[in-house]
Amino acid sequence: MSTQVRAGIFGASGYTGAELVRLLSGHPHVALNVLTADRKAGQSMAEVFPQFTGRDLPKLVKIDEADVGALDVLFTALPHGTTQLVISDAFKKNPKLKIVDLSADFRLTDPDAYATWYGHEHQALDLQSEAVFGLTEHYREDVKKTRLLANPGCHSTTSILPVVPLLRTNVIDPEHIVIDSKTGMSGAGRAANEAMLFSEVSEGIHAYGVGRHRHTSELDQEYSKAAGHEVLAMFTPVLAPMNRGIYATVYVHTRGSSSPADLHAVLSEAYKGEPFVQVLPFGQVPQSRHVRGSNNCQLGVVADRVHNRAIVISTTDNLVKGASGQAVQNFNVMFGFDETTALTGSALFP
Amino acid sequence: MSTQVRAGIFGASGYTGAELVRLLSGHPHVALNVLTADRKAGQSMAEVFPQFTGRDLPKLVKIDEADVGALDVLFTALPHGTTQLVISDAFKKNPKLKIVDLSADFRLTDPDAYATWYGHEHQALDLQSEAVFGLTEHYREDVKKTRLLANPGCHSTTSILPVVPLLRTNVIDPEHIVIDSKTGMSGAGRAANEAMLFSEVSEGIHAYGVGRHRHTSELDQEYSKAAGHEVLAMFTPVLAPMNRGIYATVYVHTRGSSSPADLHAVLSEAYKGEPFVQVLPFGQVPQSRHVRGSNNCQLGVVADRVHNRAIVISTTDNLVKGASGQAVQNFNVMFGFDETTALTGSALFP
Amino acid sequence: MSTQVRAGIFGASGYTGAELVRLLSGHPHVALNVLTADRKAGQSMAEVFPQFTGRDLPKLVKIDEADVGALDVLFTALPHGTTQLVISDAFKKNPKLKIVDLSADFRLTDPDAYATWYGHEHQALDLQSEAVFGLTEHYREDVKKTRLLANPGCHSTTSILPVVPLLRTNVIDPEHIVIDSKTGMSGAGRAANEAMLFSEVSEGIHAYGVGRHRHTSELDQEYSKAAGHEVLAMFTPVLAPMNRGIYATVYVHTRGSSSPADLHAVLSEAYKGEPFVQVLPFGQVPQSRHVRGSNNCQLGVVADRVHNRAIVISTTDNLVKGASGQAVQNFNVMFGFDETTALTGSALFP
Amino acid sequence: MSTQVRAGIFGASGYTGAELVRLLSGHPHVALNVLTADRKAGQSMAEVFPQFTGRDLPKLVKIDEADVGALDVLFTALPHGTTQLVISDAFKKNPKLKIVDLSADFRLTDPDAYATWYGHEHQALDLQSEAVFGLTEHYREDVKKTRLLANPGCHSTTSILPVVPLLRTNVIDPEHIVIDSKTGMSGAGRAANEAMLFSEVSEGIHAYGVGRHRHTSELDQEYSKAAGHEVLAMFTPVLAPMNRGIYATVYVHTRGSSSPADLHAVLSEAYKGEPFVQVLPFGQVPQSRHVRGSNNCQLGVVADRVHNRAIVISTTDNLVKGASGQAVQNFNVMFGFDETTALTGSALFP
Repeated sequence: MSTQVRAGIFGASGYTGAELVRLLSGHPHVALNVLTADRKAGQSMAEVFPQFTGRDLPKLVKIDEADVGALDVLFTALPHGTTQLVISDAFKKNPKLKIVDLSADFRLTDPDAYATWYGHEHQALDLQSEAVFGLTEHYREDVKKTRLLANPGCHSTTSILPVVPLLRTNVIDPEHIVIDSKTGMSGAGRAANEAMLFSEVSEGIHAYGVGRHRHTSELDQEYSKAAGHEVLAMFTPVLAPMNRGIYATVYVHTRGSSSPADLHAVLSEAYKGEPFVQVLPFGQVPQSRHVRGSNNCQLGVVADRVHNRAIVISTTDNLVKGASGQAVQNFNVMFGFDETTALTGSALFP
Repeated sequence: MSTQVRAGIFGASGYTGAELVRLLSGHPHVALNVLTADRKAGQSMAEVFPQFTGRDLPKLVKIDEADVGALDVLFTALPHGTTQLVISDAFKKNPKLKIVDLSADFRLTDPDAYATWYGHEHQALDLQSEAVFGLTEHYREDVKKTRLLANPGCHSTTSILPVVPLLRTNVIDPEHIVIDSKTGMSGAGRAANEAMLFSEVSEGIHAYGVGRHRHTSELDQEYSKAAGHEVLAMFTPVLAPMNRGIYATVYVHTRGSSSPADLHAVLSEAYKGEPFVQVLPFGQVPQSRHVRGSNNCQLGVVADRVHNRAIVISTTDNLVKGASGQAVQNFNVMFGFDETTALTGSALFP
Repeated sequence: MSTQVRAGIFGASGYTGAELVRLLSGHPHVALNVLTADRKAGQSMAEVFPQFTGRDLPKLVKIDEADVGALDVLFTALPHGTTQLVISDAFKKNPKLKIVDLSADFRLTDPDAYATWYGHEHQALDLQSEAVFGLTEHYREDVKKTRLLANPGCHSTTSILPVVPLLRTNVIDPEHIVIDSKTGMSGAGRAANEAMLFSEVSEGIHAYGVGRHRHTSELDQEYSKAAGHEVLAMFTPVLAPMNRGIYATVYVHTRGSSSPADLHAVLSEAYKGEPFVQVLPFGQVPQSRHVRGSNNCQLGVVADRVHNRAIVISTTDNLVKGASGQAVQNFNVMFGFDETTALTGSALFP
Repeated sequence: MSTQVRAGIFGASGYTGAELVRLLSGHPHVALNVLTADRKAGQSMAEVFPQFTGRDLPKLVKIDEADVGALDVLFTALPHGTTQLVISDAFKKNPKLKIVDLSADFRLTDPDAYATWYGHEHQALDLQSEAVFGLTEHYREDVKKTRLLANPGCHSTTSILPVVPLLRTNVIDPEHIVIDSKTGMSGAGRAANEAMLFSEVSEGIHAYGVGRHRHTSELDQEYSKAAGHEVLAMFTPVLAPMNRGIYATVYVHTRGSSSPADLHAVLSEAYKGEPFVQVLPFGQVPQSRHVRGSNNCQLGVVADRVHNRAIVISTTDNLVKGASGQAVQNFNVMFGFDETTALTGSALFP
């Protein structure tokens, strides 16, 4: 391809922003023309993230200073709630723009669900109906056509991939799904915060958002859609002392004559040929470190000692498949590039 | 009390052994006369654990060299399977001895369960019937009278304390208990092992023993006893990148008209006045780091968004309340000392 | 002793404050009557530090609300710069008060040095002349008599203990002392700070305050005093991904006919009988984890391959011997208690 | 280039082997045809390193089973001492082979130095004279021509890059160079080893090989060569609780009228245009995490408070620029590829 896609990142000074820069720097068809950062405007990316020292990157500017009209694609890595107005404004300035939104603003198709979980009315309902929930493996055809891609949450991505095929094929009991989803610290972002200081969170572990974490709403939406009726799983996120990684342990009961091995067969079939989802041999347990830095999701199915129960395990890197990597994957699909472009790197282990 | 209890530790070169030394060094009524270590016999404790440099401690000897007849109490911190013969032999040499066993050898009262979970017949069945399962809070009266104390496992202690009162009072559904139990690395012991190298297990997380971890048998025994019928919870241990701490997230369904707040009330009542179990205010989430180095178990109950479901969280330090601290607690009860002697230290945080 | 010393802690919501509470809770002669915390006044200690759940502790109040007149001893764990005014005021209200100050405000005896390193004139010069630099092992007799104890910095404590005896005995070249001092994160305190987020500082290492860290001024003062002339060592602090621990690698050249073994002999002699300083056998290398949670300083001396050079290593827990433990040690000396009271706990390892 | 270079890796089950696989998998001109692993022969790479699940890689075989004649390049990632015989044998079977050796066997040009530091006579002296010390930036022309490349050690690479230009230009005092070199755990390799268990080495720090680490010999060789006379720096490696990263703090005295800023100028000039060495602005302090996973070396120079002293800091990823990345860099030079091929990835931070 001779011409480059002109790309911008709104919110380049956060962790998902930096991860987009890391990945897109290796993309042969992307020109990274605009990087914004609110409080750090005026600085270079290398000042904000010294790992980019020596890279040829545009200076950080404020959103107001960004020329949206000169972009083909915009990645928004901004806080929830305010993003919808920024996107609304960007489309007004450039209706041909394609946007990959890493916030939660357009993930929920039901306005009431949005209002319930986020505590305020949605302010760009017209756009919400256009948005596609960008779990690429499940919505690839829709992704191709949309101009507004709602990139799923990190916990959601990790827990939708293993469960939706099981619900679709009716091999598990939708009433008794329990998900314990461990996450690394980078998901909490870069804002100064006593609760995320090294000394507060190293050498220990704890749950958070128990009984009410917002990613639950994405699970409800996708699980219910897959089952054809309302499914409300139990879901608890747990903060583990590591930078990266989501590790979901999913407890299920098989249905009818289905066995744990059948669940494994369903997942193997569902993700056959998918470049970024690897179903490990039946009984093998994934480890989050084996997907670190990669766009991979590794899945495992293990039989419980009680015959009709199984433990399904799913792991991703929250900043890659759980955020910026999946964003690039969706971008590739939206622009007709090979879906794996810039995403072929192996995990960094150890 | 004017005289000292003459104590020995078999297996002092492992982590639970060292923790016993740390705690018993601060016990005003204990004389630590014997320390054994198989491969490290002949060395001083300070050579094996430099934190004890300057402490007045006996040299490490082999078990054969230990004079069991000159002991009042013996703590056994040896591998599972071989301990039963060592204990059998010790009682032959000194029938008045009291033993606190930190291995799994005498925890299961049912010989068949033992054979099933440990893969061989028990070799000291006569003693097994004497043994008391040393979850102090639940078996205090039995502990007072026994000469053979089977100290519970770290996962078991942490998951029995929050669940047994709920089963006894019939406020939860015994058919749908799911336990995701995160643990630090020190539980894996000090043996050289590729899988436990820093580079293998830091910066990541993974489940192990999925569907078949041996501590499950202790849960089965105690849960079933509490419910009055067989209860088989789903239980998965998960290895987190930290030294110490067990953190169990327990998913339950309330029964009848019970609410999550009722569960909290049951636990508050059950542990009222207990020095080592703290039930946090309803809705507050414990953190493993807040019990680190202490003999405490902190419990929390949080309501799920679905009204008849709750998340009960329990955390301990696997080397203290999950092993050596509970061993000292049981020792105190067995010898009539104040139960908190040598165990009053606050957790080390940060 | 029948009566209790009535104690207060100003700044109880920081890490050194919490560590004082942990240690003093185990002190048989201390009644902890006052705890202050600026922004967290009104809360209980258990809310701010859940490890104290169940402990009988006074509620947090503002400094203004504290009745200084009803205290025998005050521990100040407040930020540098403002502490001098707080202390000045406290002495006005209660001249018989004894104060153990954990800030840097009274550590430098030379007002010019203070102004240079801290960037402003000292505002309580009259008190500064009363203050005793509380490195207990070196100033025990002065500590006994003072009412204002300036507790040394964590880096300073760790680097003064190994070097001062060598300078006093003239066995090393004072012109070529290099100190690389690694520290854990808890020394940075509990204030919300982007630079100290887990994701910023885990899985990596870096120097800070290079060439100009304020603790250097304490080294200059004590080294020069020991040598009898100005000594300006090279000193660089390095932030390591751990909670606790200072680990100073000190590079020295021996002087005249002195050998590395002579250095070891000097240190062994200097700290003979000291309860909290352990000189390891010649050639043995300390590890910071073996002093974690204890008031110990472990020292090692190793010969370099070049005959007249040696590496001297010193390690402490920055929150204990480097701060709150040494504060309690000084308190014990000031009030005539056994110096080890409440400080006999072994290190927590693993 | 139409044809692929046929490559083999001897020792693919260790960390440097896995890192070679990670990097070479992304190399457009390499066919990875042979992977060996002694004890794990017969397994797939995905079994040994699950991050490679789904990658098309040859099965692990024993060295004896490898067809060396069908290779153009061989990477040896085997233990020191035995490698020299393996390489000698490989050249006999295929004299046209090019070998990149990641062991220490051919790094020292002086046979006596080898015998002294490694404790035995070298067994392939004829080959040693052919070997080129592969610090690419300094020996690029030699690298182009050799068939036996001795890849430098991780500590050596990190400490040679900042110091050699300073010695060559005579701006520092060669008699007083002190290097404190912190390293992550992955450098210790994957062998089961009590001393490298997570619980032994997390949450703490310690020096090792003090006064006698073998990488010192590489510094001696290169420093002396640069200065034109014998230079024996003080060098201490320190193990930090992280997977990856070398972080060398180098303490120097400037010479004559040179200032710390002059040192910075020398380094900036020396590495101008180098793709993998970044000299940060004068006074800026590097962090190891900003090179993690990349082939970069970041250098910083900071003035000490005493005018003729400076702290020079250098950091690399021990598995990339300190091992496998530099190996690929050298391979690129040896085969005439662009030197940055397969090495352009940014560091993974956080």
